[in-house]
Amino acid sequence: MTPQIEAWVIGASIAGVAAQGAAAVLEAGRRSFDLMGVLVVALAASLGGGSLRDMLLDRPVFWIADQRYLLAAIVAALVTFCVARIWRLPVRLFVIADAFGLALFTVAGAQAAIASQAPWLVVSLMGVMTGAAGGLVRDVLCNQTPLIMLSGELYASASWLGALLLVAVHEAGFGPDVASMTGGLTVLGLRLGAMRYHWHLPVFSARE
Amino acid sequence: MTPQIEAWVIGASIAGVAAQGAAAVLEAGRRSFDLMGVLVVALAASLGGGSLRDMLLDRPVFWIADQRYLLAAIVAALVTFCVARIWRLPVRLFVIADAFGLALFTVAGAQAAIASQAPWLVVSLMGVMTGAAGGLVRDVLCNQTPLIMLSGELYASASWLGALLLVAVHEAGFGPDVASMTGGLTVLGLRLGAMRYHWHLPVFSARE
Amino acid sequence: MTPQIEAWVIGASIAGVAAQGAAAVLEAGRRSFDLMGVLVVALAASLGGGSLRDMLLDRPVFWIADQRYLLAAIVAALVTFCVARIWRLPVRLFVIADAFGLALFTVAGAQAAIASQAPWLVVSLMGVMTGAAGGLVRDVLCNQTPLIMLSGELYASASWLGALLLVAVHEAGFGPDVASMTGGLTVLGLRLGAMRYHWHLPVFSARE
Repeated sequence: MTPQIEAWVIGASIAGVAAQGAAAVLEAGRRSFDLMGVLVVALAASLGGGSLRDMLLDRPVFWIADQRYLLAAIVAALVTFCVARIWRLPVRLFVIADAFGLALFTVAGAQAAIASQAPWLVVSLMGVMTGAAGGLVRDVLCNQTPLIMLSGELYASASWLGALLLVAVHEAGFGPDVASMTGGLTVLGLRLGAMRYHWHLPVFSARE
Repeated sequence: MTPQIEAWVIGASIAGVAAQGAAAVLEAGRRSFDLMGVLVVALAASLGGGSLRDMLLDRPVFWIADQRYLLAAIVAALVTFCVARIWRLPVRLFVIADAFGLALFTVAGAQAAIASQAPWLVVSLMGVMTGAAGGLVRDVLCNQTPLIMLSGELYASASWLGALLLVAVHEAGFGPDVASMTGGLTVLGLRLGAMRYHWHLPVFSARE
Repeated sequence: MTPQIEAWVIGASIAGVAAQGAAAVLEAGRRSFDLMGVLVVALAASLGGGSLRDMLLDRPVFWIADQRYLLAAIVAALVTFCVARIWRLPVRLFVIADAFGLALFTVAGAQAAIASQAPWLVVSLMGVMTGAAGGLVRDVLCNQTPLIMLSGELYASASWLGALLLVAVHEAGFGPDVASMTGGLTVLGLRLGAMRYHWHLPVFSARE
């Protein structure tokens, strides 16, 4: 990557962390959390997935190596906490920002796993984990069944399909830019399409 | 260990991961999870305990170093997902397979901790964690109080007693084969006996 | 630190771990946990925060490097389990011991992060995590919304303010003793004051 592209990717990632932190504050809004509780949920949601990925791959944890991610998540959560008390925020905007974040983090997670020489299936799972595990941690802390596991529109599955495609393109010998664009656009297209046309996976029902 | 025994142990471990993944799918069956939710529960249940152990001991995470474990868990979950919609699966079979898995993972976890030079009490705890923490993570994700903490038949406690015996035999100077057999058979015997004769631990009740 | 002070700090930390383990047993008392379930909650509460800190900072996990912490937590939990069935224990005593533990662990966590060359905001967060994340894990395992996130008296926020002050004093060039005393006394003062005068943070309420 050229330095310009790298700077752009870091900037986009910081914006993605901020968006996930702000979205988590709004989702936590229906509970009687105090300011600290809201911050805990926002940090868990925005940094949890990448932290788990980095600990599993034994890499330096991203927000410890560069605390701008942490700062962005805290500021975004505090601003949302204050603004949401005064104005009614457009939830739809956050949901669309979250779709971009999902695509971005899926690509970032898969590329980090490729850089750690992980095998292909692990690479794809690290993509999903980076994109979707933050929401899992957030819901566990809020004491509710994680939304991404319940039947609904594609979310983690969109992330996984994109990550698998990214690995396939990478294994086929294409460069990281082509693989990242293919994977990222797949995640974004599947997620936005699922929101628009209510695409979903089969629901499990065991024979009693 | 001779290469033949090592190959056998790896094969048994992969089978154990697959059994835990399949059992988790059946346990998740009463909830309205979609295919991805079922996969998440299966992966957390079958890989969660060993992942926690490896991160705590700062060893390479087992399913990242060898993705056959991951593949086995995914395939077992997918097959169970499909088959359980058509036939009524014998839950009893899975419960017995799970008892073997508990014994196997307890031994594997304790031996991994011994290889990392961990002190004796830590070794025994790593045995329990590898055997039983996956079920803990599974229940947390399903938003229910972990079964292994509620009063019931011996489970984590069977694993801990076996692991403590394994450490004692190891500290007494016996080889890894004797220690592993002693510990593993203890876990298996206690767990199967508890299921048959309803052995349980005292229940906690604080004086009000 | 002189060897005498170091020995005192280790002794205080072990006592703190034991206090948190005992307190967790009493909090778990209203549920039908068995002996093993009570132990799991006690270990998660007393060792969870520090374990997470050490894994995130990629340091040796404290209770694996020195199993006296683990032993203290287990013994404290077992003794409380037995004693609480016979006598009604003064919960107030544990709550005050817990405030001292919170201050101690906040300082220990922040100093560990400073030793790992972490940037200032990360240092402050590691202080909070060490002090307060154990309670978070305990409540998640008990399947209830974490107490520290609900509106109530200052707890994690007292820890964070103390940790931020510790970092500020450290960055201003003062030695570790001055920084630790300032931060620790701030946490203790805020927590005891919050319990006495019911100080609390603003509660979140999004505009519908």
